[in-house]
Amino acid sequence: MELTHFDDQGNAWMVDVGGKEDTWREAVAVGSISMTRECLERVKAGSLAKGDVLGVARVAGIMGAKRTSELIPLCHPLNLTKLSLDFSLREEAGEIQVMCRAQTRGKTGVEMEALTGVTVALLTIYDMCKAADKAMEIGQVYLAEKRGGKSKTFRNEKHKAGEGNLFHRGSLRKKEEP
Amino acid sequence: MELTHFDDQGNAWMVDVGGKEDTWREAVAVGSISMTRECLERVKAGSLAKGDVLGVARVAGIMGAKRTSELIPLCHPLNLTKLSLDFSLREEAGEIQVMCRAQTRGKTGVEMEALTGVTVALLTIYDMCKAADKAMEIGQVYLAEKRGGKSKTFRNEKHKAGEGNLFHRGSLRKKEEP
Amino acid sequence: MELTHFDDQGNAWMVDVGGKEDTWREAVAVGSISMTRECLERVKAGSLAKGDVLGVARVAGIMGAKRTSELIPLCHPLNLTKLSLDFSLREEAGEIQVMCRAQTRGKTGVEMEALTGVTVALLTIYDMCKAADKAMEIGQVYLAEKRGGKSKTFRNEKHKAGEGNLFHRGSLRKKEEP
Amino acid sequence: MELTHFDDQGNAWMVDVGGKEDTWREAVAVGSISMTRECLERVKAGSLAKGDVLGVARVAGIMGAKRTSELIPLCHPLNLTKLSLDFSLREEAGEIQVMCRAQTRGKTGVEMEALTGVTVALLTIYDMCKAADKAMEIGQVYLAEKRGGKSKTFRNEKHKAGEGNLFHRGSLRKKEEP
Amino acid sequence: MELTHFDDQGNAWMVDVGGKEDTWREAVAVGSISMTRECLERVKAGSLAKGDVLGVARVAGIMGAKRTSELIPLCHPLNLTKLSLDFSLREEAGEIQVMCRAQTRGKTGVEMEALTGVTVALLTIYDMCKAADKAMEIGQVYLAEKRGGKSKTFRNEKHKAGEGNLFHRGSLRKKEEP
Amino acid sequence: MELTHFDDQGNAWMVDVGGKEDTWREAVAVGSISMTRECLERVKAGSLAKGDVLGVARVAGIMGAKRTSELIPLCHPLNLTKLSLDFSLREEAGEIQVMCRAQTRGKTGVEMEALTGVTVALLTIYDMCKAADKAMEIGQVYLAEKRGGKSKTFRNEKHKAGEGNLFHRGSLRKKEEP
Repeated sequence: MELTHFDDQGNAWMVDVGGKEDTWREAVAVGSISMTRECLERVKAGSLAKGDVLGVARVAGIMGAKRTSELIPLCHPLNLTKLSLDFSLREEAGEIQVMCRAQTRGKTGVEMEALTGVTVALLTIYDMCKAADKAMEIGQVYLAEKRGGKSKTFRNEKHKAGEGNLFHRGSLRKKEEP
Repeated sequence: MELTHFDDQGNAWMVDVGGKEDTWREAVAVGSISMTRECLERVKAGSLAKGDVLGVARVAGIMGAKRTSELIPLCHPLNLTKLSLDFSLREEAGEIQVMCRAQTRGKTGVEMEALTGVTVALLTIYDMCKAADKAMEIGQVYLAEKRGGKSKTFRNEKHKAGEGNLFHRGSLRKKEEP
Repeated sequence: MELTHFDDQGNAWMVDVGGKEDTWREAVAVGSISMTRECLERVKAGSLAKGDVLGVARVAGIMGAKRTSELIPLCHPLNLTKLSLDFSLREEAGEIQVMCRAQTRGKTGVEMEALTGVTVALLTIYDMCKAADKAMEIGQVYLAEKRGGKSKTFRNEKHKAGEGNLFHRGSLRKKEEP
Repeated sequence: MELTHFDDQGNAWMVDVGGKEDTWREAVAVGSISMTRECLERVKAGSLAKGDVLGVARVAGIMGAKRTSELIPLCHPLNLTKLSLDFSLREEAGEIQVMCRAQTRGKTGVEMEALTGVTVALLTIYDMCKAADKAMEIGQVYLAEKRGGKSKTFRNEKHKAGEGNLFHRGSLRKKEEP
Repeated sequence: MELTHFDDQGNAWMVDVGGKEDTWREAVAVGSISMTRECLERVKAGSLAKGDVLGVARVAGIMGAKRTSELIPLCHPLNLTKLSLDFSLREEAGEIQVMCRAQTRGKTGVEMEALTGVTVALLTIYDMCKAADKAMEIGQVYLAEKRGGKSKTFRNEKHKAGEGNLFHRGSLRKKEEP
Repeated sequence: MELTHFDDQGNAWMVDVGGKEDTWREAVAVGSISMTRECLERVKAGSLAKGDVLGVARVAGIMGAKRTSELIPLCHPLNLTKLSLDFSLREEAGEIQVMCRAQTRGKTGVEMEALTGVTVALLTIYDMCKAADKAMEIGQVYLAEKRGGKSKTFRNEKHKAGEGNLFHRGSLRKKEEP
């Protein structure tokens, strides 16, 4: 088991990916924010009519994902070819779940881009709702799936089709390339 | 209960804080990342000797917090006067906890800066450890305490001194201004 | 008549504002984009139901205005205390008009911030509509009003209440501070 | 007619260009700023001797164009292979016209980069001249020509060789690749 | 002797300046780049007529200095109130010397801003001249003077009026505030 | 001898590299900072135990190098495939030397990225040590080696194996690709 972001003297570096192929790569990450029922109702109302919290959070997540290599020190810069965010309001659980799907044709995976998209969107929801609920909590942020490149496809065991999980395996797959 | 980031037509805006006083303000946020025991051991070993994951994550969190208003659309730009991050390895739980303390003298609170510092640090740990463990999960990210400004001090009920929580109320307080 | 952004040898500099007072300052800028009637209809439909072009453009304008001093070489960095954008669809003219209102408490005016907010919003509309109309044109971008600081209030003669101009003098004034 | 920047639920996304070829692509955009004759004389004098407004605006336009994908939410990041700006002083009309030519080898067009280069240059001229003339107006910003990629070459009808237009079709073409 | 950028456990932090006064502060930094005589002649010719290397480097230095707190991890963000760069061609020595003067009203000094302005300008000269001379060397970059704040004025012993040094003590002083 | 960053009218531009091949390219740059013996001892002590100046400077250099095209006006944006920084404490000389190695697969060389990595790391050391020594000096910053692309390998004559120079030709070569 290697922490590859350090050289053999233990110094941080941006690892050499110059010998890797440019291949199609995709990563899907998810995350949640829990809040009071009242606050969630406000978000839901706004998405239908006015005060569109999720619309703003989606733009923030897309823009944040594009800046991943500026934020994460040892991340390679790369040019995303696709990025989308989806939101799911789970009213019974008092949660909003975010899913971010990132793609590139390049030499490294895009899991950090997907995770950054998720967290910036969640922080933006927090910012817009904090006047109504200061005790919101961000959690369950993880990589759901990663495909492409030389290593084999990764699917997170935690991420299964389930009760209340709108981003189940089926929906993860719906936009896959053939 | 108002979502103040929207005007009376429901349009997003950066709310007017021009009439607020410049006062000392502080926010403390926390968050965690869970990982396999093997991965946590590697991080721990590196912090003592070489391959310093937490040192890199600390720098990333500080730099990320300074860019909060670039990432969060409706956040006001402000000049932080202090920022620190602390890490706590909770081996029994297989977790690393991060605490970020942000301060300013200004017209708005700094909870988004503290939360952004926490999440960028956690994403950086994820990036540096992902070769060893792809199923890590980021969670329990919340505002622990907020002081200063006109509204009264907020302390998150979830955040109590407890078993295994190294950033208990006592430590939160140790650096408070008189 | 001085171009103050150059010293007495003609070298560009960021002029000294250190001796100026921190006062409330406001600027309002406007601008337009013209497009085909079909394209305008699509934008209008999206704002009501889905595909919210103006919602995305508003977020982009707010975020762009915050980065003014990074884009305009000799602009002083400053911390905006308020920023809002409003859109007006002028169907008979085949135009969308944007108005951006910026405020700060500081040593310099915020006209560049208001103008940058307007142009980034207009460019974003262009980007989102360009698949439907490549011949759109951005124009009539100017400072409508500027208040605060030592110089007296400026009101642009061109900007009068008029037929079809939804951002007439009355609406410019509606949010003024007393 | 599609607004492709939205998915079939109307949510903004960064559209998938992963299947597109990397081809040579070019875009040319233009725009103008009108000002008083006195102010234009000052700019002209400075470009010859000292106080080089257009030199600063050129650098700002180049740097701004490189940051297009940070400013325009749904724009794909891409690596420009060429960028140039040219200015034309039209004294009889009291205008400065800017032309920006952008090129890349990539999967998407560069019209937004060319338009962003034009508008940032125009805003910079505004900033440097605003002490002399607050009523300047930015306008006539449009895509003049777009070549490369799968869609056929676009030439804007408005953009013809004409009286006073220094960036006529001939000059647009002079640097074209064979 | 303290390295104040670390807390008492040796962890990097952004030190607390919240208790400091907002006072006028100034820093002046210098630096040089040496090159072949032929290359220096080209730069000199360009500054008079066309191909203005120093004009571009000046803009880059100003813009770079504004981003100091994004580049230097533990630097506090602050709003510069003045920034200027001056160049001096020392032909006999085959050198171009740069001087950057930064000012603010704030809680911390601006030496890092002045030094960053100098080095970004020097790197820009390097970039523009490297086709003609790859062996250029950047050196003698140091803080020349620092004034304001609670600590007493610092003047670097190395920085004296001397033969060929155009930024001698006299010129350092010429723009000082009374 | 051409200053290629200007067109034939002497206007700055980002030169056309669209016709160049994507090839492996590498650049190595070095630079130094001199300081008092006491200050150097502090840095050395911190690197072993706590207060890790060089660890922070390494992260800053990596992140700075990734932003080269944002800082240097006419630099092409490119995606680095590898970046590393090494430090060498030369106690007898009272100096810390930095070496930055940058690689890409692309159309232009990466010497500016390597030089930017070196200077941002040196500025960060300056920032962290300036409380202990204000008279530090940054110097001897130059390109040591450049390989790849169409032009032949460049090796700087100044950069030889020598007394006290830990980054001698042997170590420069140790990580070369075959």
